[in-house]
Parts: sequence; C-alpha cells; structure tokens
Amino acid sequence: MADEVKRQVYLDHMANTPVDPRVIEAILPHLKNTYGNPLNLHDFGQKTAKAIEEGRQKVAELIGATAKEIIFTSCGSESNNFAIKGIANANEKKGKHIITSAIEHFSVLHPVKELEKQGFKVTYLPVDKNGLIDPEAVAKAITNETILVTLTQASNEIGAIEPIKEIGAKVKEKGVVFHVDAVQSAGTIPVDVADLNVDALTLSANQFYGPTGVAALYLKKGTRIIPFILGGTQEEGKRAGTHNIAGIVGLGKAAELAKTEMKVRADKLVPLRDKLLKELPKKISDFFVTGHPTQRLPNHASGCVKFIEGESMSMLLNMEGIAVSTGSACVSKALKASHVLLAIGVSPENVHGSLVFSLGKDNSAADVDYLLEKLPPIVNRLREMSPLGKSK
Amino acid sequence: MADEVKRQVYLDHMANTPVDPRVIEAILPHLKNTYGNPLNLHDFGQKTAKAIEEGRQKVAELIGATAKEIIFTSCGSESNNFAIKGIANANEKKGKHIITSAIEHFSVLHPVKELEKQGFKVTYLPVDKNGLIDPEAVAKAITNETILVTLTQASNEIGAIEPIKEIGAKVKEKGVVFHVDAVQSAGTIPVDVADLNVDALTLSANQFYGPTGVAALYLKKGTRIIPFILGGTQEEGKRAGTHNIAGIVGLGKAAELAKTEMKVRADKLVPLRDKLLKELPKKISDFFVTGHPTQRLPNHASGCVKFIEGESMSMLLNMEGIAVSTGSACVSKALKASHVLLAIGVSPENVHGSLVFSLGKDNSAADVDYLLEKLPPIVNRLREMSPLGKSK
Repeated sequence: MADEVKRQVYLDHMANTPVDPRVIEAILPHLKNTYGNPLNLHDFGQKTAKAIEEGRQKVAELIGATAKEIIFTSCGSESNNFAIKGIANANEKKGKHIITSAIEHFSVLHPVKELEKQGFKVTYLPVDKNGLIDPEAVAKAITNETILVTLTQASNEIGAIEPIKEIGAKVKEKGVVFHVDAVQSAGTIPVDVADLNVDALTLSANQFYGPTGVAALYLKKGTRIIPFILGGTQEEGKRAGTHNIAGIVGLGKAAELAKTEMKVRADKLVPLRDKLLKELPKKISDFFVTGHPTQRLPNHASGCVKFIEGESMSMLLNMEGIAVSTGSACVSKALKASHVLLAIGVSPENVHGSLVFSLGKDNSAADVDYLLEKLPPIVNRLREMSPLGKSK
Repeated sequence: MADEVKRQVYLDHMANTPVDPRVIEAILPHLKNTYGNPLNLHDFGQKTAKAIEEGRQKVAELIGATAKEIIFTSCGSESNNFAIKGIANANEKKGKHIITSAIEHFSVLHPVKELEKQGFKVTYLPVDKNGLIDPEAVAKAITNETILVTLTQASNEIGAIEPIKEIGAKVKEKGVVFHVDAVQSAGTIPVDVADLNVDALTLSANQFYGPTGVAALYLKKGTRIIPFILGGTQEEGKRAGTHNIAGIVGLGKAAELAKTEMKVRADKLVPLRDKLLKELPKKISDFFVTGHPTQRLPNHASGCVKFIEGESMSMLLNMEGIAVSTGSACVSKALKASHVLLAIGVSPENVHGSLVFSLGKDNSAADVDYLLEKLPPIVNRLREMSPLGKSK
C-alpha cells in the first residue's frame, strides 16, 4: 500500500530559493534566544544589536560595501520602492528626470510611474533582442534634469546580465545617482558596488538560500535619501520598524555562504543551464530561447513555446513533479502579457508560451534530464488538443 | 572556577517578546520545506499559499475579522505608515483633515506630519493625566473635512487602555475611517474589530510571542486604501513583495496561542503588575506611577523617579541582570524628552526619570520581587552621587 514517492524537481529558484540548512542552523539559536530590542542598552538588547551588526557586516562583504552602507528591509520590493522614491524625492530640487528601462520588475516600474504622475519625467530605455541595455543609450538619455538612473542587473524573466559596470561608469561621469535592482543577481554572480559604480543596490535573501521576508538596500555613503517607513530611529533613522532579527542573521549567513561558494555553484549550474538552452529548441519544435545566449545568470534558462500557453505547460509539468515559472512570479496571477518579453520583441501571441527554468545549487544533471524527458510530450499533447496547434 | 550564573530578568516585553517555543516548532518545518512562490500554481507554490492562508485565518480569528481583511506586512511601523498614508491619500478628495492624539507612536506621528506638510490639516487631541483620550473630544473634533481618525489603543510608554469602543461608535456615526494602532494591545487584551468599530488596525507578532519582522494590517472590507509598497500582485495587490513565509506561520501560531491563553496570561500578570504599581512608590521616594492606575495593559507598569535619569537606572539594573526600558524602545537612542509623558503632564525634568516595566507570560512573582529588591538601592546610590539628589 506504500505510495510511490513522486519525483520533485524544483526549477523555480528565481521566484524563491529553499533556505540552506546551514542558514537555518545559524538562525535557530537567535530565534530562540535573541529578542532584546537593539535600541535598548541592556544586555538583551545589545545581544540583538551584535547579531544584527554581524549580519550587516556579512552582507556588506558580499558586495564590497561597508557595513554602514547597508540598510535592512523586508523584501526586494521594499528596497526598490524605498530607493526610487527616496532618492527621487531627496533630489527633486536638482531635477525631475528619471531613467529606467522597459524590462524592470514592477517594484521598480510602479514607483517610477507614481513619480511620473507626480510630475517627474521618465525615460524608459529600450533593450535589444537579447534583453541588453546599451550603455551609450543611457549616457545619451542623461540631461541636466536627470537625478536618478534605476536599472535591473538581471531580469528574472530573461536572465540577461546587463552591462552595469559600463553603464555605471557613464552615469558616474555625469554625476547622477545610479540605483541597481540586483535582486536576481546579488549572491549569484559577483557584485562589487565600487567596481560597478553604483550608489544604491537592492538585494534579497530569498534569492540566495536565505529566508523570505528580509532584504537590504545598499546606499553609498553620502547618497541622499528620504526614509520610506517613518517612525523610530532604527537603521540610523533611515528605516523605522523593529528589526527582523532571525531574518537578518539568516541573510548574513546566506551572504557569507554565497560569497564563499559562488564560483562552485556557478561552475556546477552553467553546464546544466547550457544543456537546457541547447536541447530545448532541439527537442521542442517552435521553441526559441529568450534572453542572451551566454551573458546570462548561471542558473537561468528561458524560452517560449509558440502557440501554447505557458500556464498549461506549467500545470502539466507540475503533475510530473516539476516546478517552473511562466514568467515573473509576481505577475503570473495577473495573466498579463509580459512587458519584458514584449520589450525584447517577442510577439504578443508568443509571449504567452513563456517558460522560465531557474536552477538551484541542489539541482542535478538528472533533474535537467527529467525536464527534457517530460516537457516535449507535454507540448505535443497540448498541441494535439488544439487542431490549429493553439491552446486558445 | 565555575562562574556564577547571573540572574536574568527580562521586563521589557513592550519592546519585544521572546518567541514562544511552540511558535518556533510551528515555524521550523516551513523554514525548511516551504519555499515555493505562492503566486505560482505548482505544488511548491500552493504549499506556501496554504501555509500563508492558514496564518491569515488565525490572525483574523484573533481580532474577529475575516481572513480577506488581513494584509501581511513586515512590522507595526509599516502597517501604520501604510494605513495612514494609504487611507488619507485614497480619501483626500473627500477632505483633508486627520485626527490623532498627542501620545501616538512615532510610526503614526511621523506619517501624519508628512501628510501635514503635504497640505492635510491635523488635530492632535490631548489626553488627561492618566493618558486617556476623551471620546467626546474626538466627536467634537470631527468636521466635514475629516477623513481619518488614527489613535493608539495603548501606548507602550504608559500602558493606559484607550476607550476605543466608545470612540469607534462616535467615529462610525460620522462616517469617518477609524484606524487603531493596536501594536501593544492586540494579542494581549481582547480586540474585536466589529465590537470596537474600527476600519483599520495594526498588530505585530513580536508583541505576543511571535517572531520579529512580521505584522499585519486589518482593513475592513470596502475600506479604500492606496498601496504603500508597490510591485507584484501579492496580498490582493495591496502589498507587494515576497511573503515572509516562516514569519507569517509564526504570527499565525502566536495569534492562535494568544487567543487561547490570553485570559490565563492576564490573570497571572495583573497581580504582578499591581504589586509593582503599589510597591514602587512605597519603596522609592519621589516615585510616581504614569498612566492609568487600573485601566491599563495587564503586563504594563510604569512611572518616573524624580531627579534621576532613567538611562542611569536602566544601566545599573542591567548590571543586576534586569532589563527594563526608559520609554519607547524606538526613541530611547534619541534621548529626547518623551512626548507621551509631556502630554500627560509630567514636567520636562521628571520625564527623564521614566521607567517602563513590561511583564511577559514567563515572568514570575520572584522576578518582580527581585526588581523591587534591586531598584531602591540603585536609586539611593544614584542620589548619593549627586549632593542635590540630581543626577545631572
């Protein structure tokens, strides 16, 4: 009567990574015994303050920052909202022009659009067919009114790694504040804020095997910002609210592990990613890869199956125990055509056939083979269900 | 050579409660194995969605709400910022008048002051010497322009329980939105949103033995609000950002325990609280109780020692292993005279001698006796250090 255990293959690490057991081990004693308020001077509070500052130091080391430049937040979305609104509003007397791109996450685009309603002018830079932003285009878009450039380092939907260093050099030359949404890249590829010439950078624990509910904003010393969550004096007055103690410890430990193991993880995943990028178009007719063929996150493969709904493929893959995403997790419920795929020139019909396969450090070659075995017959089955080869 | 273990007495539960071991037990399996993005339809995501919705249901049950009326946030400060800015901005076409009180937490006062700068008019209601707001005064302050009344149910500094039900009835009669900051009260005293006639209510897990980094905003069905953190479609589009999965599970479990054990906890703590309120003025000359003598949180005792700095007493108590607060944890580093104590009529000189003793469910009668033994000689010692009996 024993049930057969269904094989479970999680290929949705862009949406969320599992928490590393070593991170849980680091969190546990603090979850149990670290609860004093760090703003209070008693031993209980100072124990918490020490745990938080150790976490801050580790996050700083991951990105080549100093600890004082790290502000803890609750998620990448909060960091992006905070950075964009806070930097724009702190600098609006200098000018009211913001530059962003057509492939940003909604936690960047929506605050930018809100600022637009409030009178800011916004330039939405296009990307090429591989999803890359042209550094020259950024430089050309900067005017005397420009106060903020905010760009992603890698979109969760297409995984292309943007030329942030080249863009950063140009933005710095013009004296404009540069914010980078590195939620999908920090902890996965080397990110050094000095090397990249960024003034503000968003990162999130849940993208590199830390817990959900904790993230950070790097803010270069001297960069002006208006606080987003107002209240107490936490985080040097820049972010009010009781600290997520266990979360910060977990983010710190995850950052430490990411720094140490980044190369090993990437070396393992790049061949798996490349196998997907090579084999999927071979095994599935009318499949094309999205994003850059090589300049992409080591754990990210994506593409579109023509004439088939990503949602249907994802549901049938799920029945085989395989978890993939049909685009950005944050918009999948919205069922809107992805603005990122439209921006790289995918036609509106084909956008709906989008699939993102995002690998994690514990995925194996067998996981990739399992997907490559299961997906093609699913595509064929869905095509047979529709005489025109269209699911809708 | 064995060190004597120093007795540790934590009396700073208004700042943060320890996490209940049963909450940790509830969190752990999810910290390990629940990581799918709940917006994705695969099994991993749906497992997370189920955990989140169970947490939501438990939070709703704690305050007599429906699950759909609960929005998860990262802290009480975020909930307060969100509620105040979001409700005010959603209703500003109806009017631009807000009513609050002189004893609010900074996470209420600062957003209100920001709205004031943007053109809103604000009435700051006074309180009586016990810290109570007069419901009649609230009713009288409401004009045709009033769109929001935002009041605390209990200040962390003085613990007086406000007549929210009476105020709620009057605010409802006038058709104005009523937000209550129940960070210090929800989970500690009975809070029923229907009975209290509130439209929005802030609560936080770290005040009733849940983890830090997770909180909620109750928003009555139909209450208009503009989202605060913009981005993805989480929380029905009202709060973007990846969910704090383990945190939400912990908040839910803590809410369930609080509901079941609230009376037992209070029955245990009220006599300890009352002993402090009775004995402290007897044992310490020039000590007076702050807040209401009886209508106060079951775990809250507070007062001022004349001519002595609270900070000095707190430091010496810490050397005896006792953790207390000198006021609101969020402002203690700021060393400003507490606006709450000034509002109840404490003189500026005496404000600095403020101490808050906040009990927790695991405190014992012996803990209270230990404080009552240790504090008087500390006060005497500090007085002796200054010939005028003044520490400064």
